Amino acid sequence: MDYQNLANTYETPLYIYDFNDIKSRYLELKNSFSARKSLICYAVKANSNLSLLKFLANLGCGFDCVSFNEVKKALLAGAKNYNIILSGVGKRDDEIEEAIKSNILMINVESKAELLQIEKISQNLNNKTRISIRVNPNIDPKTHPYISTGLKENKFGVSIELAKWMYLYAKKSDFLDPVGIHFHIGSQLLDEQPIIEASKIIADLMKSLKALDIDIKFFDVGGGIGVDYEDEKTINLYNYTQGILSSLNGQDVTIVCEPGRFLVAKSGKLLTKVLYEKENLGKRFVIVDAAMSELLRPSLYQAFHNIKALKPYENLSKCDVVGPICESGDFLGKDINLPNLNSGDLLLIEDSGAYGFSMASNYNSRLKPAAICVLDDKIQLICKKESFEDLIKNEVEFLGNFDEKH
Amino acid sequence: MDYQNLANTYETPLYIYDFNDIKSRYLELKNSFSARKSLICYAVKANSNLSLLKFLANLGCGFDCVSFNEVKKALLAGAKNYNIILSGVGKRDDEIEEAIKSNILMINVESKAELLQIEKISQNLNNKTRISIRVNPNIDPKTHPYISTGLKENKFGVSIELAKWMYLYAKKSDFLDPVGIHFHIGSQLLDEQPIIEASKIIADLMKSLKALDIDIKFFDVGGGIGVDYEDEKTINLYNYTQGILSSLNGQDVTIVCEPGRFLVAKSGKLLTKVLYEKENLGKRFVIVDAAMSELLRPSLYQAFHNIKALKPYENLSKCDVVGPICESGDFLGKDINLPNLNSGDLLLIEDSGAYGFSMASNYNSRLKPAAICVLDDKIQLICKKESFEDLIKNEVEFLGNFDEKH
Repeated sequence: MDYQNLANTYETPLYIYDFNDIKSRYLELKNSFSARKSLICYAVKANSNLSLLKFLANLGCGFDCVSFNEVKKALLAGAKNYNIILSGVGKRDDEIEEAIKSNILMINVESKAELLQIEKISQNLNNKTRISIRVNPNIDPKTHPYISTGLKENKFGVSIELAKWMYLYAKKSDFLDPVGIHFHIGSQLLDEQPIIEASKIIADLMKSLKALDIDIKFFDVGGGIGVDYEDEKTINLYNYTQGILSSLNGQDVTIVCEPGRFLVAKSGKLLTKVLYEKENLGKRFVIVDAAMSELLRPSLYQAFHNIKALKPYENLSKCDVVGPICESGDFLGKDINLPNLNSGDLLLIEDSGAYGFSMASNYNSRLKPAAICVLDDKIQLICKKESFEDLIKNEVEFLGNFDEKH
Repeated sequence: MDYQNLANTYETPLYIYDFNDIKSRYLELKNSFSARKSLICYAVKANSNLSLLKFLANLGCGFDCVSFNEVKKALLAGAKNYNIILSGVGKRDDEIEEAIKSNILMINVESKAELLQIEKISQNLNNKTRISIRVNPNIDPKTHPYISTGLKENKFGVSIELAKWMYLYAKKSDFLDPVGIHFHIGSQLLDEQPIIEASKIIADLMKSLKALDIDIKFFDVGGGIGVDYEDEKTINLYNYTQGILSSLNGQDVTIVCEPGRFLVAKSGKLLTKVLYEKENLGKRFVIVDAAMSELLRPSLYQAFHNIKALKPYENLSKCDVVGPICESGDFLGKDINLPNLNSGDLLLIEDSGAYGFSMASNYNSRLKPAAICVLDDKIQLICKKESFEDLIKNEVEFLGNFDEKH
């Protein structure tokens, strides 16, 4: 790929996504569940670019949304309403109402209070609303302390006991239709065993609910399939799907899977230009034109992203790759081995397709960057760079109120 | 203040700024330097609302900008070009060029490479560009290890030795006019002593430069004056300004001071509405309609913000106040004592005037909130809530490229 040409045409920083790669990964996951009815619901929060959503919708992909704006984006991109799920711990009343009116597949419920609120709104709309309940499988901490800790003090989902009560309540309600069961034990998981174990626990719960005539049709295993940012050993997809399938022996359900990072992280790169090299007391800094405003993961999670120079790897030395933002926390990589760099040299910040653009801000009054995709060797713009006019759009009309009195 | 009425009128989450309060603080700081010529340059990155900038410009305030977009905003808000400074470790060529063309007060230079670049661009524009150099005072680690560590491995400024070389270089150049000297040792400082110590070191450097006929006119002490988020003892403003003034005995210079947080942090509140209460395994969560997308500081810095309920303080118990975003890291406060709360109850997240709105994102496809100000008991909208159309503006036109082929 002629990155210099891309930088000239679209400016840097620039997000570059490989749509062919995303398609392969979608098909790989979809096919791994082929023994069963399945619906892959892409987790829109990972990257909500409209063209990306449309590309996935065209493949038959569904969407896991965490705000009604995400639902609107998915629908605008051509998603079928019956392939859309609305999740999230804090849905506003207007979001619940719009979701019901849009007749989406189901709403994932995260608390008793929310269940009662959905019932109330459904009653007002005279609708029997399809719901799923997010259950915390409460895995034995001796087996998986890191996950169990995550589950105990976290805002998501409900306990198995409360879930049973909620299913029975929903079953009796004229306005609730409990069609799904859902769990999601964490993000960037690198080992399939905890998910399989959780799957067994939730499948057992589902069987006991079915015995109570609560007919669960969708078994939603959430997302969380990790990717290798730094040569990590990752989930074995075959073992993952086989493990889940084996927990569902004899159960006639559609498996719902909600991958975000897995589908898009490795298919995105952030192209950036070197502004300056400098050395402070023996420490080498490479200052680039991308920053935490475009890619927050290193600052927020101390996340690692491989950074590659687009020039010969000679005279390597370690450096911190940092952005122009006035924060010590504005770095993209620490202790990265890179060749000598000059102003204008290009770098690729790899594996930034997920939680990159979607977490971007205008901090330091920076403009959100453009994004392009590569599909069948064709390069297409899929997001224009923000303009200064965009930046001031919602503020400029009020300036007149502060004219000085003479 | 009738917060319920504000919530009804402007929706929640909503930023509320007290402009009278900001004015008092500006005047307090300005007056504390009254023995000398001084220029207060508000650090725009803390909160770049246009009406706020105009309000400060009307008071005679200058502006410390860290991108040319911030300079554009300040100019649009009525700032005088000769009251504007451009800082930042990674200025792009076009930003340097525009800053020179705008004839701003000076450019703060952060590296040798940048100095040479500014000279080159100035030569192309046939301009003698006013510059200042950001110097790391390199305070003895035995005295202030926490600051010295901060200085050693950080991307900002240059050493005293390099600064001397750069001043001599600039002095000889036909295109550079070294009129200022600058230091900034950190943010949210609660003790004035390190700043005063740094001030003495940089003043000594300035005197030695003056002996070499380098006529420094602006002594820029940076910002970093901390505020009490959690009853911290803060900088004594009298000691702070007296300490700085005493380091400048006999020197005919204008003091430049760059407060951001100090001017606006305590004058801003984020109004938010309770969506749900829930309990997970004995832990109480209050889910509100504000999130890390509006106020990133708790997630990014584990920063504390006081959270106040607008109802009687009875039956208090500890809870985590969390947002609707699908991240465990999306919290606004931990272990906060609050009364029982119902859906619709209002909370105030205090001291969020600085680095609140300016770091906001659209994560989870959330819309940036509205902002209002209170000035002389009059409430005014100063930023409209973002719309869904804003959210998709730069992406929607490309959807047609992905129509399915039939």
